Amino acid sequence: MLMEGSVRCSANYVPLSPISFLERAANVYGDQVSIVYGDQVKFTWKETFERCVKLASTLVTHLGVSRGDIVAALAPNVPELYELQFGVPMAGGVLSNINPQYDSKTVSRLLEHSNAKVVFVDHESLDAVEEAIEILARKTSDLPKIILISDADKSLSIAPTCNHVIFEYKDLLYSGSLEFDIKRPIDECDAIAVTFTSGTTGNSKGVVYSHRGAYLNSLAAALTMEMHSMPVFLWSMPMFHCNGWCFPWAMAAQGGKNVCMRVASEKNIFESIARHHVTHMGGAPTVLNMITNASPVDIIPISGTSVKVMTGGSPPPPQVILKMEELGFKVYSCFGCTECYGPATVCTWKPEWASLPPETQASLKARHGLNHVGMQEIDVKDPITMKSVPKDAKTLGEVMLRGNTIMCGYFKNAKATENVFKGGWYRSGDLGVIHPDGYIQVKDRCIDGIVSSGQYISSISIEVVLFGHPKVFEAAVVGAPDDHFGEVPCAFVKLKDGHNADADEIIEYCRTRLPENMTLKMVVFEDLPKTATGKTQKVILREKAKMLYAQK
Amino acid sequence: MLMEGSVRCSANYVPLSPISFLERAANVYGDQVSIVYGDQVKFTWKETFERCVKLASTLVTHLGVSRGDIVAALAPNVPELYELQFGVPMAGGVLSNINPQYDSKTVSRLLEHSNAKVVFVDHESLDAVEEAIEILARKTSDLPKIILISDADKSLSIAPTCNHVIFEYKDLLYSGSLEFDIKRPIDECDAIAVTFTSGTTGNSKGVVYSHRGAYLNSLAAALTMEMHSMPVFLWSMPMFHCNGWCFPWAMAAQGGKNVCMRVASEKNIFESIARHHVTHMGGAPTVLNMITNASPVDIIPISGTSVKVMTGGSPPPPQVILKMEELGFKVYSCFGCTECYGPATVCTWKPEWASLPPETQASLKARHGLNHVGMQEIDVKDPITMKSVPKDAKTLGEVMLRGNTIMCGYFKNAKATENVFKGGWYRSGDLGVIHPDGYIQVKDRCIDGIVSSGQYISSISIEVVLFGHPKVFEAAVVGAPDDHFGEVPCAFVKLKDGHNADADEIIEYCRTRLPENMTLKMVVFEDLPKTATGKTQKVILREKAKMLYAQK
Repeated sequence: MLMEGSVRCSANYVPLSPISFLERAANVYGDQVSIVYGDQVKFTWKETFERCVKLASTLVTHLGVSRGDIVAALAPNVPELYELQFGVPMAGGVLSNINPQYDSKTVSRLLEHSNAKVVFVDHESLDAVEEAIEILARKTSDLPKIILISDADKSLSIAPTCNHVIFEYKDLLYSGSLEFDIKRPIDECDAIAVTFTSGTTGNSKGVVYSHRGAYLNSLAAALTMEMHSMPVFLWSMPMFHCNGWCFPWAMAAQGGKNVCMRVASEKNIFESIARHHVTHMGGAPTVLNMITNASPVDIIPISGTSVKVMTGGSPPPPQVILKMEELGFKVYSCFGCTECYGPATVCTWKPEWASLPPETQASLKARHGLNHVGMQEIDVKDPITMKSVPKDAKTLGEVMLRGNTIMCGYFKNAKATENVFKGGWYRSGDLGVIHPDGYIQVKDRCIDGIVSSGQYISSISIEVVLFGHPKVFEAAVVGAPDDHFGEVPCAFVKLKDGHNADADEIIEYCRTRLPENMTLKMVVFEDLPKTATGKTQKVILREKAKMLYAQK
Repeated sequence: MLMEGSVRCSANYVPLSPISFLERAANVYGDQVSIVYGDQVKFTWKETFERCVKLASTLVTHLGVSRGDIVAALAPNVPELYELQFGVPMAGGVLSNINPQYDSKTVSRLLEHSNAKVVFVDHESLDAVEEAIEILARKTSDLPKIILISDADKSLSIAPTCNHVIFEYKDLLYSGSLEFDIKRPIDECDAIAVTFTSGTTGNSKGVVYSHRGAYLNSLAAALTMEMHSMPVFLWSMPMFHCNGWCFPWAMAAQGGKNVCMRVASEKNIFESIARHHVTHMGGAPTVLNMITNASPVDIIPISGTSVKVMTGGSPPPPQVILKMEELGFKVYSCFGCTECYGPATVCTWKPEWASLPPETQASLKARHGLNHVGMQEIDVKDPITMKSVPKDAKTLGEVMLRGNTIMCGYFKNAKATENVFKGGWYRSGDLGVIHPDGYIQVKDRCIDGIVSSGQYISSISIEVVLFGHPKVFEAAVVGAPDDHFGEVPCAFVKLKDGHNADADEIIEYCRTRLPENMTLKMVVFEDLPKTATGKTQKVILREKAKMLYAQK
């Protein structure tokens, strides 16, 4: 209820939207660099704004995008994908970032589900998308229009012999107009993006983001990462994942420089940091592990202020944090997921930790902390009684969150939306504990937990010990079915280059450091299968463990 | 329009409110210091949260505050006033901070206008409030309840011989309950505060803030001031003014330490900076001028990182910025006003300025820049045609703003609200120019401009030159009526201690540095009258100039 004399009008009420960040950046930071990519691409914020306006204009005028239509994109971290994060919403469209490594079947399923009107596709993913369109064409004649992104850095010129491409991205912009009237959300809860989780299973769900949530999570991400004005952000984690954890939008809010990168190798990362004076970046714990294990010839020492790194997706092993900090990085451990726009919590550093040994500091930092300033609440609850677990760092419960930076729901799946919001909280499906200081630590995906003799075993707890073994590069633990115990823990281990170890050595190392019920029953040495976002694919390992353990 | 499958529920939608900052601070920063005041007061965020819950509880249970009721407060920057910024909203009330230096007549008028249910009053303002109540009592029997704030630092114990005081603040908290169910806004546009401008004239207007605007401006203020987690904020500007520019709420969002201070003298400021390692503070340009002119015995050199100072309220003279930076401060020049929740713009520093001479840097920094991240738009327009002025740093227009951090309106004054929002913009009543780089510089209050021979003269432009005179401590220029010219510029000057100058010397100094029509016609040497927020009271000087110039 407004107080007497108050009004709500265009002077004092504007639907929240990240679009305003870009408009403001064009004014405040117009002459500052917005994007660099290799040697060929360098834009200012004024240019980026104008390119996005033209893109939006073309989408509406030439490609027939109407308010609420879905526009899909499959690309690595190239400047074009950055521009799409703004250009599509500015056309009134809803952006659907799709993992560019998905196969044609998956892509066709997602395009069918979303009824995308236009698909932007990087040249490396073009074959898969062409095939996907062929699959779709068997069912419908209402096919999306394909726009090809050739690599600006490499000046790649593909003659579009392909059947369904109607334009190249770079040509598209020529036909755009700067006079275009930007389409802003009518209600700030209007959708800005839809992202499909678990794309590779038949069970994919479209997570819907609103302009409001995106705006708020962007500001929260900037504050969480302690960003000053004009930071330099290295795109070391995929932009298609949770819309780059909202950092494309946050960088416009802060007028920062986006360092784009096609491949996030350790060599590229160190080179970019040195060349562009990177201040901030992000990456899954597996990316951090890759950095800490980089070959000495690739490592370029970080000079001056440390590089702030946000990590999330799975719990980071303390050893990895410790090594990262020794290399000159400052790690911000966050809990996040697609449903909460990327980062949702941060393990806020406490000044009193400074006097503790580095190993203890790393263990404290490896926790997930508490909700960031944009998220209302986080808790660890018994999923049945909805009671919070005690703050004993032991009792497991389901991690639950609520706030404005939780998704609007699952696209066209009201049933799934209802289930995941049951009780007025978003149920993350992750298992966690609460420490005596109130900080939360995620221990596992609910689905990744191992139940042995009726008792829950956290696979992460065993993995943390494995990461401490001097010969281990990385490790993943899953449960294998066992007639006697129900499930038993099995480890998949990748050793560091030039090192050897046998199963007994690894089992013995863990046995002396863990409770008896956590003793490994099998160790397999091999490379771990990863998703494009760097998560270990435990679903594959579980199948493998089941098979190998049965043969034992 | 929500996408199919989406819902709006308590899991993903929470009305924005700064109350959530305090709740979060109690969890994330619970054991960190929230407030220090002298030697006696030191609270943690957990304690501050609990004290505010108790305060809210008492307001509802014992003092009869209902949703939407106004609760007034008159106090300097003591911890109790900080707690009221949260406690009143948590009771569902609307906080009205009143200048503690107002006289009884003004106070009675404001209390009558707002129909305040409860008034919190610092012991230094008690006499005025007692008198105000006597005045009110002649008109109504529906009198507000008075709560006395005695000074916790000085353990002052006033026997409430006064007639209308029913409780002391510290006793009030004892009767509060931690079980109280915090009253959150039902709609985020619900009012959180009402602040009266121009209190000393009969024409005061109650500026209404919403929970949404307060939330957004707090985050914008933290980002604008480049605040890391757990900053240390010195209360060198009055908390009653625009709710302390939203910094009480921003500090809870960032888990910072509030250094409270009854009197913002230069001695107290330097001592507090040294003792508490202050990272951020704010102050009107007159406060900055006071700091730069501090006696050498009071100055304690700033060690380590520079102290970030937000300044606003009136345009800061470049010389003052220069001296501040020499002392180890980093100045953020902002435009702001009560109607826009305090700061609305910031003069964002550009890296390329670093190579310019310090004087040029200071001149660039003295401008007001552009809208901060929470404000949608700022422009300088012709108030009739609503066309933007050219970017020539010369053409004057009215500074106008729009966005979520503009007030809801004037309390019980729909007509004034309508006028000030005419054309869909908030019309600030300030005159400004746009520089070629797009940055805005405010030149004057519309009302303070001088019109000589039909041409507009900016009083600030003359003041900036006066501040450059080696003997001048501070100066203010106003217009005096003149039969021939219409108005002529007259200066009021305060010289530095131990310096002498005559009018001719000052006039000649300015004449050689300014266009002819800006030549001063009269110089008066005296102390400048100030408002409690440190602004020079030009309304008084104009009257004086009129009288003195007529006698000449």
